[in-house]
Amino acid sequence: MNNMTTCIHFNEIMELELRKRAHFINSVGGFKSIGLIGTTDAKGNTNLAIFSSIVHIGANPPLISFIMRPDSVERHTLANILETGYYTINHVNETIFEQAHQTSARYPTDVSEFDATGLTCEYKNNFTAPFVQESKVQLAVQFKERIDLSINHTIMIIGQIDHIYYPADCLHEDGYLDIEKAGTISCSGLDSYHKTERINRLPYAKP
Amino acid sequence: MNNMTTCIHFNEIMELELRKRAHFINSVGGFKSIGLIGTTDAKGNTNLAIFSSIVHIGANPPLISFIMRPDSVERHTLANILETGYYTINHVNETIFEQAHQTSARYPTDVSEFDATGLTCEYKNNFTAPFVQESKVQLAVQFKERIDLSINHTIMIIGQIDHIYYPADCLHEDGYLDIEKAGTISCSGLDSYHKTERINRLPYAKP
Repeated sequence: MNNMTTCIHFNEIMELELRKRAHFINSVGGFKSIGLIGTTDAKGNTNLAIFSSIVHIGANPPLISFIMRPDSVERHTLANILETGYYTINHVNETIFEQAHQTSARYPTDVSEFDATGLTCEYKNNFTAPFVQESKVQLAVQFKERIDLSINHTIMIIGQIDHIYYPADCLHEDGYLDIEKAGTISCSGLDSYHKTERINRLPYAKP
Repeated sequence: MNNMTTCIHFNEIMELELRKRAHFINSVGGFKSIGLIGTTDAKGNTNLAIFSSIVHIGANPPLISFIMRPDSVERHTLANILETGYYTINHVNETIFEQAHQTSARYPTDVSEFDATGLTCEYKNNFTAPFVQESKVQLAVQFKERIDLSINHTIMIIGQIDHIYYPADCLHEDGYLDIEKAGTISCSGLDSYHKTERINRLPYAKP
């Protein structure tokens, strides 16, 4: 009976204990893109937080979004982005995934997650927000739009990619960046980290 | 020089050839959740399309979103969701990833992607939208909200999970569903499919 399929309905989902429901519903969304979002406040105090809801919005212009909850440790990220207008998104790799996860701890306001986790804060190219030096793919992003999702009071942040650092040997002729080769990992649920193994790239589909 | 880091700026990104830019910017967003979205029109004609922008919005209530472009083959999915109010999201596994990718081809309006790709259309539990029988994790979703993103004319669709089919032996005690064990795969860029290998699950982070 190991392959038995089970069905759970809305009412049963709503009756699950809070944390159990969070684990379950986060899992059923599939594998997630994770990134460390680096910000500073106006005084230059740094903040770093892991997000697992990073989504490509479009390529022309290059736009990227993520979802946040206003009532969580993520609120510093939001405040800093609104205050300075800039942030970084740094890919997570196997070397730093434990430190990346640790940024989700509720540190006191005066503690930088860079210091707390040992990840290296890197400033470059006159960009005001800090990068994670250990990250192999780093995006410098300009804040563009905040969309409040009234349905559950989460917030969608949309930014435009200003510049991107990436390993030269990961870029293919056709523009595809081999993030697996760059060591980027993925996440499922609230706390499970996964490396990847390419099955294949497929040609543009035609009828 | 293999580990050399390159930097590309906004202006250079905008000068990339259209398809090359799409490959590149889709890649830098990280690994993506993919799902086959099954719908019907009011007459019962089925449609199936692959989406790679599926994002968890919240667990209480269970909400899930995806992004679509209105000018693409995805327009049938949108029209059907608005017409019927219901759709399914079906996880993609290694057995069906080529057929899943093939649903992105621009078939004539009167051709169902189920027929064209050989994926099996499954109706159950009195739900009006069709599931993909070969999928191991299947979500029945009720349309809740459409958000037009004026910044680039894409559309965000938010739905509430009505019920979920999943393999019983993939559910952990704490609510985590092991989608890797269920065979769910991930995608990067426009056309690269990846299976996963768990590195670890980590405990809830505390300072």
